[in-house]
Amino acid sequence: MSIRIGILGYGNLGRGVECAIKHNPDLELTGVFTRRDPKSVKILTESAKVYHADELEGMKDQIDVLILCGGSATDLPWQTPKYAQWFNVVDSFDTHAKIPEHFADVDKAASESGHVGIISVGWDPGMFSLNRMYANAILTNGKDYTFWGKGVSQGHSDAIRRIKGVKDGKQYTIPVEAALESVRRGENPELSAREKHTRECFVVAEEGADLARIEEEIKTMPNYFSDYDTTVHFISQEELDRDHSGIPHGGFVIRTGKTGWEDEHNHVIEYSLKLDSNPEFTSSVIAAYARAAYRMYKEGQKGCKTVFDVAPAYLSALSGEELRKHLL
Amino acid sequence: MSIRIGILGYGNLGRGVECAIKHNPDLELTGVFTRRDPKSVKILTESAKVYHADELEGMKDQIDVLILCGGSATDLPWQTPKYAQWFNVVDSFDTHAKIPEHFADVDKAASESGHVGIISVGWDPGMFSLNRMYANAILTNGKDYTFWGKGVSQGHSDAIRRIKGVKDGKQYTIPVEAALESVRRGENPELSAREKHTRECFVVAEEGADLARIEEEIKTMPNYFSDYDTTVHFISQEELDRDHSGIPHGGFVIRTGKTGWEDEHNHVIEYSLKLDSNPEFTSSVIAAYARAAYRMYKEGQKGCKTVFDVAPAYLSALSGEELRKHLL
Repeated sequence: MSIRIGILGYGNLGRGVECAIKHNPDLELTGVFTRRDPKSVKILTESAKVYHADELEGMKDQIDVLILCGGSATDLPWQTPKYAQWFNVVDSFDTHAKIPEHFADVDKAASESGHVGIISVGWDPGMFSLNRMYANAILTNGKDYTFWGKGVSQGHSDAIRRIKGVKDGKQYTIPVEAALESVRRGENPELSAREKHTRECFVVAEEGADLARIEEEIKTMPNYFSDYDTTVHFISQEELDRDHSGIPHGGFVIRTGKTGWEDEHNHVIEYSLKLDSNPEFTSSVIAAYARAAYRMYKEGQKGCKTVFDVAPAYLSALSGEELRKHLL
Repeated sequence: MSIRIGILGYGNLGRGVECAIKHNPDLELTGVFTRRDPKSVKILTESAKVYHADELEGMKDQIDVLILCGGSATDLPWQTPKYAQWFNVVDSFDTHAKIPEHFADVDKAASESGHVGIISVGWDPGMFSLNRMYANAILTNGKDYTFWGKGVSQGHSDAIRRIKGVKDGKQYTIPVEAALESVRRGENPELSAREKHTRECFVVAEEGADLARIEEEIKTMPNYFSDYDTTVHFISQEELDRDHSGIPHGGFVIRTGKTGWEDEHNHVIEYSLKLDSNPEFTSSVIAAYARAAYRMYKEGQKGCKTVFDVAPAYLSALSGEELRKHLL
């Protein structure tokens, strides 16, 4: 029997989860839940329906795992604990500083209701975290590096679009190749923000806008751009739509470390992602963890979990025997 | 209180485990056990002692986890099940084809005795297996590639040394860069053995040996060399000792796959290792899984496990709270 999935929120991530379910024959989409008018939301899966979010509580018995596809700023902090009352839940909460608080909230709700809630699933937090953790456990005497990109940063693109005279814009975060190479050579460099990443902006200005002023405002914007070498390109809306409509991302997690009685041997562990679609990859990770949440629940586990707490085998549709035979 | 570790077998791997214990303050080496005369074995750790393997059974209460550092061909198939009677055990069994059988043997012994046995720990099998598995669970529609090297293959070096007229030799397995690049570009190539790896041999010939015949015998050796482009260099024993005494290794696990409603987006997941010392890295992975074995045992778990069955958090000396705060 398939694992019945509900999706709450139908933006890029919700659509990504819908696609991921299509790629996992043991998962089945029951419905997409929205706070908008359900009639206004068109989904891709013919066998599934669109419901209003208010209908969720009444569908407790029709959904095995609810995947929360809202935002970390204002949706997930209350949604994940709320729905953990009734469902096994998975979210992609990514406000690093607030994870301990979110974990506690979800753990309380899920422990009380006897469900499993897996939070902060995706690639960072998620697969990158896992790789940092494994590498740290193996090379206890070492140094961690995380590089992001090349990819679109939503936050930085939003920041550009808030500038007066900017009609539209996209920002790419790009790792500095020389820094990556130095890390890989085991040189253990101390890298400033500027030395690790550059920022490239493609901006559509409003007619008659002062381009020099816009460029200056971008490059000097604190937190977002002032600590980086930033390039600004002014292009037309057509060019932006044609060349920059994708949401690629990726990055590198590297740990270098030493072993041996006198620390005489060097090692480099590197994990990297090159993603055409950030939300679809995140969704694919989430789909695997939805499977895990359901299996752990069936075994009687409960409470809040992160990727650190989930044994890898739970993620795979294959049996333990098949995994040992084909992938070990 | 520290986790008390015993090491059975004191070759490269046993010594590597000893070094790894030094790098993990919560692990403590109780003793090294050997089938040789204990007086003939000198270890590095001053606080630990060397015992004969026969003394192990009597030391059940002084060891929390026994790490088996014997070979996969003739030692581990009987050692791991035998010692799982009395101890939590970790081994690095790497005969892929026999893993199901070994798993069953260890599972029976460990389940009956109430201990945890983790088998096939290291990097391949081990970290490479884990990365294949995670990547398969995420990108269900994709293709796997594993490349090994650049590194010393013990089996191929042994095969060279068995040739008449060869005094000593080392063989390096080297991934073909063009194949790696094609995979990374998402071209999904079908690669023959020859297209994936080249083999480079450094050979010390006996005085007066027929070098042309040796080179021919190497290059045409079935299974080992005949399916590869192989280079043979004749060098002096001094050169071999000076330039080729290390045991480096490494490799790449890559999965490429597609997501999206119409499989319109491509993704590349890559994990790579660059290791100065193959046995010391393997040992460092084993040390982390020894910690996991002990913790799982303390929680009442039992039976045989592989890296697929161990939740990542068990590997780390950090608490769940610290992991979430610093590495998620």
